[in-house]
Amino acid sequence: MLGNFSYSNPTKLYFGEDSLEYLNEELPKYGKNVLLVYGGGSIKKNGVYDKVMEILKSNGKEIFEDPGVMPNPTVEKLYEGCRIAKAVNVDLILAIGGGSVCDYAKAVSVSTYCEEDPWDKYYLRMEDVENKIIPVGCILTMVGTGSEMNGGSVITNHESKLKIGHVFGDNVFPKFSILNPVFTFTIPRYQMIAGFFDIMSHILEQYFSGEDDNTSDYIMEGLLKSLIHSSEIAVNNPGDYEARSNIMWTATWALNTLVSKGKTTDWMVHMIGQSVGAYTDATHGMTLSAISMAYYRYICQYGTAKFKRYAVNVWDVNPVGKSDEEVAKEGLDRMESYMKGLGLVMSIKELGVTEDMLAGITSGSFVLEGGYKVLSYEEIIEILKASMQ
Amino acid sequence: MLGNFSYSNPTKLYFGEDSLEYLNEELPKYGKNVLLVYGGGSIKKNGVYDKVMEILKSNGKEIFEDPGVMPNPTVEKLYEGCRIAKAVNVDLILAIGGGSVCDYAKAVSVSTYCEEDPWDKYYLRMEDVENKIIPVGCILTMVGTGSEMNGGSVITNHESKLKIGHVFGDNVFPKFSILNPVFTFTIPRYQMIAGFFDIMSHILEQYFSGEDDNTSDYIMEGLLKSLIHSSEIAVNNPGDYEARSNIMWTATWALNTLVSKGKTTDWMVHMIGQSVGAYTDATHGMTLSAISMAYYRYICQYGTAKFKRYAVNVWDVNPVGKSDEEVAKEGLDRMESYMKGLGLVMSIKELGVTEDMLAGITSGSFVLEGGYKVLSYEEIIEILKASMQ
Repeated sequence: MLGNFSYSNPTKLYFGEDSLEYLNEELPKYGKNVLLVYGGGSIKKNGVYDKVMEILKSNGKEIFEDPGVMPNPTVEKLYEGCRIAKAVNVDLILAIGGGSVCDYAKAVSVSTYCEEDPWDKYYLRMEDVENKIIPVGCILTMVGTGSEMNGGSVITNHESKLKIGHVFGDNVFPKFSILNPVFTFTIPRYQMIAGFFDIMSHILEQYFSGEDDNTSDYIMEGLLKSLIHSSEIAVNNPGDYEARSNIMWTATWALNTLVSKGKTTDWMVHMIGQSVGAYTDATHGMTLSAISMAYYRYICQYGTAKFKRYAVNVWDVNPVGKSDEEVAKEGLDRMESYMKGLGLVMSIKELGVTEDMLAGITSGSFVLEGGYKVLSYEEIIEILKASMQ
Repeated sequence: MLGNFSYSNPTKLYFGEDSLEYLNEELPKYGKNVLLVYGGGSIKKNGVYDKVMEILKSNGKEIFEDPGVMPNPTVEKLYEGCRIAKAVNVDLILAIGGGSVCDYAKAVSVSTYCEEDPWDKYYLRMEDVENKIIPVGCILTMVGTGSEMNGGSVITNHESKLKIGHVFGDNVFPKFSILNPVFTFTIPRYQMIAGFFDIMSHILEQYFSGEDDNTSDYIMEGLLKSLIHSSEIAVNNPGDYEARSNIMWTATWALNTLVSKGKTTDWMVHMIGQSVGAYTDATHGMTLSAISMAYYRYICQYGTAKFKRYAVNVWDVNPVGKSDEEVAKEGLDRMESYMKGLGLVMSIKELGVTEDMLAGITSGSFVLEGGYKVLSYEEIIEILKASMQ
């Protein structure tokens, strides 16, 4: 049921092959000092870095750089970014990369002028932002997290083995994001398909919550069908513009707050996946894929009606002459075949998880309400064991 | 295919049974002088008027009124609204009503400080707004047009028998809109179901354009299925909150620019419907329903693949053993049954159209490109004749 909520999304999106040109329209809105935030050297190899530098220079910007953002940005890196941003009095943080880089940019944006330890305030205690926020713009080169149009920011603390995501309010959303599907063509296959499953997981974790039948459920079914269709094309032909552009657009709408309206939302797969990530530093989307089948096969019994609907509406299972349980199971079987077909990691063992880590991963998994079952410690352990197959 | 586009939607939405309370958060952002714009007396009968007045007064506003906005707002009414808005130096226009009232509020908002005749500049010549724009807020009491979250504004000129819609940029979008499904419960049945079809028409006129297979098509299929499902509940039980809230939310997303991304869009049914409206002053949604079956049955031959997809994905037609044409036709047959089941007007005769009007209605229909067929004068006449059955 659609209860009471408000909706606004202030991020301006520029989409398409020519979208980088619009950086020229955005830059004059901000001061002179731009902090370029990015990961490894891939943007230098594929030419995006040079193109952005040229536009920044032609707009008379003073450019500072904060490279080396890792796939799971650490709290130490965050402290370093804040020191740089403060020292040079940054007017705009420009993130070039995927979700990790965008997440990190938002973390620096809210933390630079935070008078306490930002890890404590914004991640451990999840408090609202009261200090000055540095505006962020994003140029996406990897697809999956939806970070380009939301307030999400995940930071990892290796010392305490915690990977925590804070979903900030719309004052922290990127001011603009540039989405050029072509920039995503050169991502390694492993990262590409991990991103595809990250998108799917975002949709499923909102879809499988509540027994409601509302507009958000229908929109999510549409997004899922589009994603399945386009990902099966893209996995065989990563340079297919139509498929990659659909996936890029689906990723944004899967996690920009729209489809959560009226849904309690679940996020248990993300919680367990993040805990796996804190132990293994594995690619985010793969931690989700490695857990998902065990998780959904387990909770299916607590939400059979919705899993049946999922099987019929998303996986085209013919329900005639079958029990609800059979239909639901057939849907999950098809999902598993699809995942294997993409080449996703289906076991946490492959990600480096060993038996002795299971207790720690379980303790590090925040247990959320909202899904069909609030998991106990024992249930999480069982799901993790089933994910070791 | 998703080409180059930008997306931003600055309208803030407050949704739900308690959403009117948020007017208290919005009002302090604007100056003292509020112009209340509304239609007939229905908002006085159902109590919405009193509730709004109380909130305005408790926020210390100076309240001016511009009532009597008609279902198809006229250019004479627009001139009158501009005179009032200018005389009292309005800081915020607050529209209470359905699409016509919101459309009218936007027209006054851009026209009050226009130095030329706004009909010429903004409707006949469709020019951009350079003058001062008065901010608009909306409180919806009727669902259908999506005007609460877009830049659309339709004005009728009876003298020249023209009904023209200008889609303004996001600087003209309402600053905020309050969507309380309960406020829509007291709409007369005829207006309610006309609104349902207006929503459907918005989706179909974007869906049936291009042969593309992109994310927008999948989202629209989801919105259509949600709409069909909820409208069949609401027509039997107008007080069903879940159904009415889903419909209200679907209406907003059907026409707030999201689902048009990557679509050429059609709008020919709206063009012919608006011309019928200029001749008969009939309810907007009913002009669309009365024309739609004849229109879609005609253009089906030019986009059979998409009509087949529509039949299968939206109307659950089983395609096994049937030709594409048969599947497509079966989908349209189911659509027609659904429309009759709702009680929609299926003939323009019922709306007061007579044979002698057909030539004028055809000439008054702007012919748009973007759909599967650019219609000739003769084709529009044929569609109108088929709609006289």
